Amino acid sequence: MIEEKENIQFELTDELIEKVELLVTNNNDKELKTLLNEYHYADVAEILDELSLDDSVYVIKLLDSETTSDIITELDEDIREKVLKNLSAKEIAEEVEELDTDDAADIIAELPEERQAEVISKIEDEEHREEITELLAYEDDTAGSLMAKELVKVYETWTVAGCLRRIRGQAKDVTRVHSIYVVDKEEKLIGRLSLKDLIVAKSEQKIADIAKENVDFVSVTDDVEDVAKVMAKYDLEAIPVVDSKQTLLGRITIDDIVDVLKEEADKDYQLAAGITQDVEADDSILELTRARLPWLFLGLIGGIGAFIIMEGFEGSLPKEFSILFLFTPLIAAMAGNVGVQSSAIIVQGLANDDVKGSINNRLIKEMLLAALNGLILSVFLFLFVFAWEQNFKLALAISVSLVAVIIIAGLIGTFIPLFLDKRGIDPAIATGPFITTSNDIFGIVIYLLIAKLILGI
Amino acid sequence: MIEEKENIQFELTDELIEKVELLVTNNNDKELKTLLNEYHYADVAEILDELSLDDSVYVIKLLDSETTSDIITELDEDIREKVLKNLSAKEIAEEVEELDTDDAADIIAELPEERQAEVISKIEDEEHREEITELLAYEDDTAGSLMAKELVKVYETWTVAGCLRRIRGQAKDVTRVHSIYVVDKEEKLIGRLSLKDLIVAKSEQKIADIAKENVDFVSVTDDVEDVAKVMAKYDLEAIPVVDSKQTLLGRITIDDIVDVLKEEADKDYQLAAGITQDVEADDSILELTRARLPWLFLGLIGGIGAFIIMEGFEGSLPKEFSILFLFTPLIAAMAGNVGVQSSAIIVQGLANDDVKGSINNRLIKEMLLAALNGLILSVFLFLFVFAWEQNFKLALAISVSLVAVIIIAGLIGTFIPLFLDKRGIDPAIATGPFITTSNDIFGIVIYLLIAKLILGI
Repeated sequence: MIEEKENIQFELTDELIEKVELLVTNNNDKELKTLLNEYHYADVAEILDELSLDDSVYVIKLLDSETTSDIITELDEDIREKVLKNLSAKEIAEEVEELDTDDAADIIAELPEERQAEVISKIEDEEHREEITELLAYEDDTAGSLMAKELVKVYETWTVAGCLRRIRGQAKDVTRVHSIYVVDKEEKLIGRLSLKDLIVAKSEQKIADIAKENVDFVSVTDDVEDVAKVMAKYDLEAIPVVDSKQTLLGRITIDDIVDVLKEEADKDYQLAAGITQDVEADDSILELTRARLPWLFLGLIGGIGAFIIMEGFEGSLPKEFSILFLFTPLIAAMAGNVGVQSSAIIVQGLANDDVKGSINNRLIKEMLLAALNGLILSVFLFLFVFAWEQNFKLALAISVSLVAVIIIAGLIGTFIPLFLDKRGIDPAIATGPFITTSNDIFGIVIYLLIAKLILGI
Repeated sequence: MIEEKENIQFELTDELIEKVELLVTNNNDKELKTLLNEYHYADVAEILDELSLDDSVYVIKLLDSETTSDIITELDEDIREKVLKNLSAKEIAEEVEELDTDDAADIIAELPEERQAEVISKIEDEEHREEITELLAYEDDTAGSLMAKELVKVYETWTVAGCLRRIRGQAKDVTRVHSIYVVDKEEKLIGRLSLKDLIVAKSEQKIADIAKENVDFVSVTDDVEDVAKVMAKYDLEAIPVVDSKQTLLGRITIDDIVDVLKEEADKDYQLAAGITQDVEADDSILELTRARLPWLFLGLIGGIGAFIIMEGFEGSLPKEFSILFLFTPLIAAMAGNVGVQSSAIIVQGLANDDVKGSINNRLIKEMLLAALNGLILSVFLFLFVFAWEQNFKLALAISVSLVAVIIIAGLIGTFIPLFLDKRGIDPAIATGPFITTSNDIFGIVIYLLIAKLILGI
């Protein structure tokens, strides 16, 4: 019954895209439908991402809105924006009608404000319309903005048999039943049940007697990153969302959390590499420039700063010591590398809630660590310079200052993210170019000062 | 019934740790049990991570193995290793007996080889013992190493009523029922059902009639990262694992995938920052040094290389042009920053399967992007050098070479990860210090060559 698949992953080939394009060009609707219905909606979205806008819109209008609504949620954000521009408010409302409230609200939120109201007014199902309007009102990045209204809810006074009967009704609207939430007559969350519990229980039992009372929940105003941490830590697959009066409002499922975790990881990774905004390899050169140029500019300013400092030193440095300048790229590179390492460990520790204890202890530990690394590296550098230049004092000056530079770079790399975090600023912005650039400058200043001191200039 | 919680997250306070320590010191077992039973096992694990080894072992031996087995799976790996050393093979076997097969196999796999066999032989439940032995045989990072044997399986010939009856039996051993897998009489996977389908169906219906035939599955030898991609893309909460004959072997659940995704993201982030091995902020200075020093050493070698190159140029450079050396930190920093940006975009794109099209197109795009960024930055640098040094030719030489350096750095940053990926090597190792160091050297060589050419030296 199941076809053998060679790869577990769908492969988007040029042949497949060309085949779809040809079917569109020939208006061969029947075959196109048959072909695309073979694929999962997430795969069809990948195909549409590669088609021209006209072709994509053609396919969207051709397929049933039950399928296309799912496809639309999976399209690349830029492509989706363009596709939706080519659909009428009525058509978008029909797509939205097929979706769960959370996905529906996400799509509507991406529309220009004036269109949002128009699309909402065209949603025929009144309850769906009201629920979507409610979800749109929650602030970005809160549990409310991520939750769906779809859930299975039972009252504590029901019996197992009555419950099963009513769940048969409710469950049809809910894609996946994780937990059944138990509420009292004021709609307050007081417990939960699994479908398994219900199946295993005797039919005359009261819900109140079989419900588990310790149910994890989050508040509608909680930050999504905190929700993600709780769900990952406690291995939850869904978590109910309540308001300040404990009223059950909705639920968040693990698949949305997987997306949050991925986005968060991507963002931190990009910040560490000096890229802002959420860009992808396939974005336009202009978008990529906007994400990359500011950080490069920061690096340029840092480089100019380093130049000015070095020129200042040059005036007071006898010509025979100009060799010191030939080591500045080495010093800057080491300061940058150490700084990035220590900031990355702290940023990651903060993200995983692993960083316990006082800032002072952290700094002392980093100092010891940097001193150890610095010493090992400096011995090596000393041996090289001494062998190469046959000058003991010069070798000593350069290698001693390297230790100092490494220790200070480690301290800066540790302190800045901790400091930003204490002030409520995302510490991830402190990694990458920010740390590298400031450490370049600090490193060069410290190096030249210490070298001058040791050389007695 | 539910207590009001101020924070959704458990907070590990010094007071709590001290309280636990005091109860341990006083051998106040009853109160200690009462206190710890209030917390989720993942929270208890966090408490134990902070206690002395003796205290942790005391707590583990005190609590029921039903609770402690879960606590042990959540302990920090280093702490777990030490705790298990302090338990007898029999005690470990008792803990393992309480766990699902996947968690049980993970814990046993961490033991020294000679202890593994001893612990396994002490597991009383024969089926559990055999299943764990099977799981231990799969290679690391394959679907087999991640799957659990616990699942709910029904035969296509059963009726809904018969099925519900038997599921009541099977489900007790399965923590969470996601899907019910339908097999034929040869144990081959031929479809799936949700509990919801079963509840909604009529009791006399045949399983074969209500089963969904298109069931996603993975092969037991598939890479876990591929499994994670499939599950995230298709929003799956569990996926069955089969062998080459389509025999149902086990299933992988989304909570394990969340862990895989987090580990993968952490690893890439650390590599980009020049940290190998899986270290955390709280690891020992020695462990952190082992993870950081090799990359710093690479940077040092690069710096020494840059020095040797610059010294080579110095001989052929008239003294009035030694100012060129004062710009080498700027050039190296820009080359490093651009390289890290382009490699990070490629590495992330490869991880998300976003990188389509040929390597040549990628390189052309990166060249245009780097040229655009380089031009903007060079105009700025030209104006600065010209204003500062009043030397048109010098300003031109430095800024023109900056453009060239940026373009080449971008190309290197794009090419290396693509090249590594083609050869089957994890491209993430090419980010961070590797790119920075090689770009430092290339950048300085190109800069000095072009500057010499323009200045006509």
